[in-house]
Amino acid sequence: MSLHEAIYNCRAMRRLDTREVPESLLLELIEAANQAPSGSNAQMARWIVVRDPAVKKQLADLNRKGVESYVGPQQPMEGELSPHDRIVKSVYWQMEHMHELPALIVACLDYGEKVEGDAIYRKANSIWPAIQNLLLTARALGLGAAPTTLALRDQEAARKVLNLPETFIGACLIPVGYPLGKFGPVTRRPVEEIMRFDRWS
Amino acid sequence: MSLHEAIYNCRAMRRLDTREVPESLLLELIEAANQAPSGSNAQMARWIVVRDPAVKKQLADLNRKGVESYVGPQQPMEGELSPHDRIVKSVYWQMEHMHELPALIVACLDYGEKVEGDAIYRKANSIWPAIQNLLLTARALGLGAAPTTLALRDQEAARKVLNLPETFIGACLIPVGYPLGKFGPVTRRPVEEIMRFDRWS
Repeated sequence: MSLHEAIYNCRAMRRLDTREVPESLLLELIEAANQAPSGSNAQMARWIVVRDPAVKKQLADLNRKGVESYVGPQQPMEGELSPHDRIVKSVYWQMEHMHELPALIVACLDYGEKVEGDAIYRKANSIWPAIQNLLLTARALGLGAAPTTLALRDQEAARKVLNLPETFIGACLIPVGYPLGKFGPVTRRPVEEIMRFDRWS
Repeated sequence: MSLHEAIYNCRAMRRLDTREVPESLLLELIEAANQAPSGSNAQMARWIVVRDPAVKKQLADLNRKGVESYVGPQQPMEGELSPHDRIVKSVYWQMEHMHELPALIVACLDYGEKVEGDAIYRKANSIWPAIQNLLLTARALGLGAAPTTLALRDQEAARKVLNLPETFIGACLIPVGYPLGKFGPVTRRPVEEIMRFDRWS
């Protein structure tokens, strides 16, 4: 698949089949993520590919807590939905089905030393180019994926579930599987709104 | 170009020609960046494509201050260099030539309200998938690019140079141009070191 097609058809795919994903494809995702640049080339990104049902269940429970505290408990959503409500509905779908999705990939950072305070957030930037490589590669392989940070809001709980050393943080969880919905373009603000030449105003 | 080829041959290209880049290609970079996902789909990324020599000069001066305070003043580097020293040398090259590079793209975030403290760093994550789209697309178009945050360490100074509203932060500066060096693969840690199944240990 061309780079252009991958970039322009890479919707967040939350509704996924339970069908198993071959291990070779999961490894391809991590290999692609591993090519990305990182701040000062520190290469702190670490990846855990979770397929064990017991671990998936624990991560799904953490995600439910994160979603319910950030978005609120699930409400019935019927009829014509706004774009925002459609996203919320798919976040709930992901929440209800997370434990049965084939693979939950957890993107971590290993700081090499215990890091506290806002330094965590500053350095966490370095993992997102890698996550974008992973999402684009999933698209090219016909796999759906959609990152969420809500499952990792409680770092101490996530650390226990995943046996993370204290030099690690969990940055993002990315469920991966064959999509139930259709790939397609995304809707974005027009470029005239988001760019200027030379100075903003 | 295929996604795979772009991902696997996307070195940070700091040594760039002074030759002008067609505006249509610069717009293609921003369009590609604009397709990327963002936290809660907030689409806060904003882009300034700087070609005005006076603005480039001011950004180059800010970058020099950032490099010298982070890496130290430039030292002569001769003979056989370690991989780290080769990066440092190219950072100095970028510093010395930044004012004459054809386009300096500044990635900003518009929070919609004045943001202070560590919230800046937390939300700044959202721009890095877009930056990766931009870097990969530059690669596919035969353009070199390499992001740096050092030019934007002094947010107040950057704000004045670029006339940024107080709801903006400057997240990253990306010089873009035709490369003087060769594209090629990057060296990364082996996958066995950076991934596990199910739990880290």
